[in-house]
Amino acid sequence: EVAPWTGLGWKATPLKSDARFYAAYKAKEMTKENRRYHWIEPEAERLIARAYARHKTLVERDVAMPNGWRSFPPSISLKDLESEAIAKEYHYEPRTLGDRIAKKLVDGGEKLMELFFREKYDHHAVTLETVAAVPGVVGAAHRHLRSLRCMKRDHGWINPLQEEAENERMHLLIWMQHTKPTSFERAFVMCAQGVYVAAYSVLMFLSPRTAHRTVGYLEEAAHRAYTEYLEAVDEGAIPNVPAGDIAKAYYRLPDDATLRDVILHVRADECMHRDFNHHLGDLYDSNEQDEFPVKMDENASKDATTNSRPSLERDTA
Amino acid sequence: EVAPWTGLGWKATPLKSDARFYAAYKAKEMTKENRRYHWIEPEAERLIARAYARHKTLVERDVAMPNGWRSFPPSISLKDLESEAIAKEYHYEPRTLGDRIAKKLVDGGEKLMELFFREKYDHHAVTLETVAAVPGVVGAAHRHLRSLRCMKRDHGWINPLQEEAENERMHLLIWMQHTKPTSFERAFVMCAQGVYVAAYSVLMFLSPRTAHRTVGYLEEAAHRAYTEYLEAVDEGAIPNVPAGDIAKAYYRLPDDATLRDVILHVRADECMHRDFNHHLGDLYDSNEQDEFPVKMDENASKDATTNSRPSLERDTA
Ligand SMILES: [Fe+2]
Ligand SMILES: [Fe+2]
Ligand SMILES: [Fe+2]
Ligand SMILES: [Fe+2]
Repeated sequence: EVAPWTGLGWKATPLKSDARFYAAYKAKEMTKENRRYHWIEPEAERLIARAYARHKTLVERDVAMPNGWRSFPPSISLKDLESEAIAKEYHYEPRTLGDRIAKKLVDGGEKLMELFFREKYDHHAVTLETVAAVPGVVGAAHRHLRSLRCMKRDHGWINPLQEEAENERMHLLIWMQHTKPTSFERAFVMCAQGVYVAAYSVLMFLSPRTAHRTVGYLEEAAHRAYTEYLEAVDEGAIPNVPAGDIAKAYYRLPDDATLRDVILHVRADECMHRDFNHHLGDLYDSNEQDEFPVKMDENASKDATTNSRPSLERDTA
Repeated sequence: EVAPWTGLGWKATPLKSDARFYAAYKAKEMTKENRRYHWIEPEAERLIARAYARHKTLVERDVAMPNGWRSFPPSISLKDLESEAIAKEYHYEPRTLGDRIAKKLVDGGEKLMELFFREKYDHHAVTLETVAAVPGVVGAAHRHLRSLRCMKRDHGWINPLQEEAENERMHLLIWMQHTKPTSFERAFVMCAQGVYVAAYSVLMFLSPRTAHRTVGYLEEAAHRAYTEYLEAVDEGAIPNVPAGDIAKAYYRLPDDATLRDVILHVRADECMHRDFNHHLGDLYDSNEQDEFPVKMDENASKDATTNSRPSLERDTA
């Protein structure tokens, strides 16, 4: 017998313990004790839920801040996504010893990945994203714990770093709908994660600037990897299959969207990570890590003088 | 000379390197190379910003999910916040050995805290929140890394756990506006954090159910601590001073809000953490940790049968 609440989006399956609720519900015998939050009373539950439903202010702080970026569409066209502006390989020139070490580390990793995966761009993408989704969560935790430890504000970095981690994890889930990793790849990710998380956490603790610079370079490599993936699709080496459900939901793509569209959207995300991390590296360089992020500006190309200034004036007006 | 963008909310001070931007801006000599994101071209910046401004779908998934809670007001009245429903000490009865160990651990910590702080409720609150803001971020990282490692979905737990951590960190910042921790307290938090984070991370890895149960009990203790704080204010032992700026912005309080109002709002948050963590502990108990959270229901008290079911039917209708 199918419960009435199956068939939701996201392949939501009822909890196993839902059977109990459903039976009670059908028999109209639902009691207070049958409830999911059974150890508190319904009136408390209602009020607590209401009380908790208020915490948008800090997420919204960006609206009041310089250069706040709106995290909701305006959407972007495929034409924009394949334009030279995004296709171009931007490179942050190393300035310090730390920068050069970061670059060397990433270059080495990139070469190994290319040797191992060769033309298997889809497998490359899956493995890459299991790596790429770590720094954001480590960086966010680092800043969060630092804020607690020093009992001072963070100034708006935790959320964007968490959003970066979530974005990368979504990339992983998106590619998982397009390919099946081999057992060897799965085993590698399982084993390597512990070492990788520990090493990156230590680097983040010792030198946040180099840690974020490393991510900047990692994202430069990710941009290259997706450009190659795109070229393989364009050359017909990889069939341009329909896009998966998760990609369509996440990027709000039309029903007939294809793999190529998804690659374009993902690549643009990597650009953002690249530049946001280089920016944060820069701020650590100039000892400005306790300032608000200056986010990328949607109006930047209209007028070279607009980089974050006009919105500031508007906000103070 | 004051830059034109000072005086924003959140005490935003311009970046040190803003002086350069401001000088160029005033002299109308802003060039492409002067920009904050100087290593990419303005056109790229605009498009990348647009492309990135799309990731609300996953945050919004709750809207499509059973019992989705809206993270924006309806606000809640002070009358509701001091009602018996929220004032009452709810207790999750230990069921397993793990539960009992968790309870003992928290009871011990609570007693030590009470012995140390006695009537210094404000100092107690600050120290408590530096502890309380850790589990959410560890729990979120745990589920995030697990999703990457196993290359599978998380089902909506990462965001609420991050929101919990952010909420606790906001409590800390709120209380920091009401009190100045002693050097000893600061030193204690500095030193204890490393051990505490490591220990809690190991517990989370070994037994997530016990880890979340521990938080459930910690939040029960937090609820007690804030009830005592409230009583001290009501008895006049602690003056009911005006609320700080951060509390007013975060909870959207009126200009004449007081310490007492803030305590009421904070206490209601602790209720939510308590119950959300007990709920997650329950799901681990029944091996349902890979299901979506069932969030507290704003309509729970209207009809005991509504706990998550009617909204499910509405969503499938
Ligand atoms: Fe990615
Ligand atoms: Fe990335
Ligand atoms: Fe708290
Ligand atoms: Fe709490």
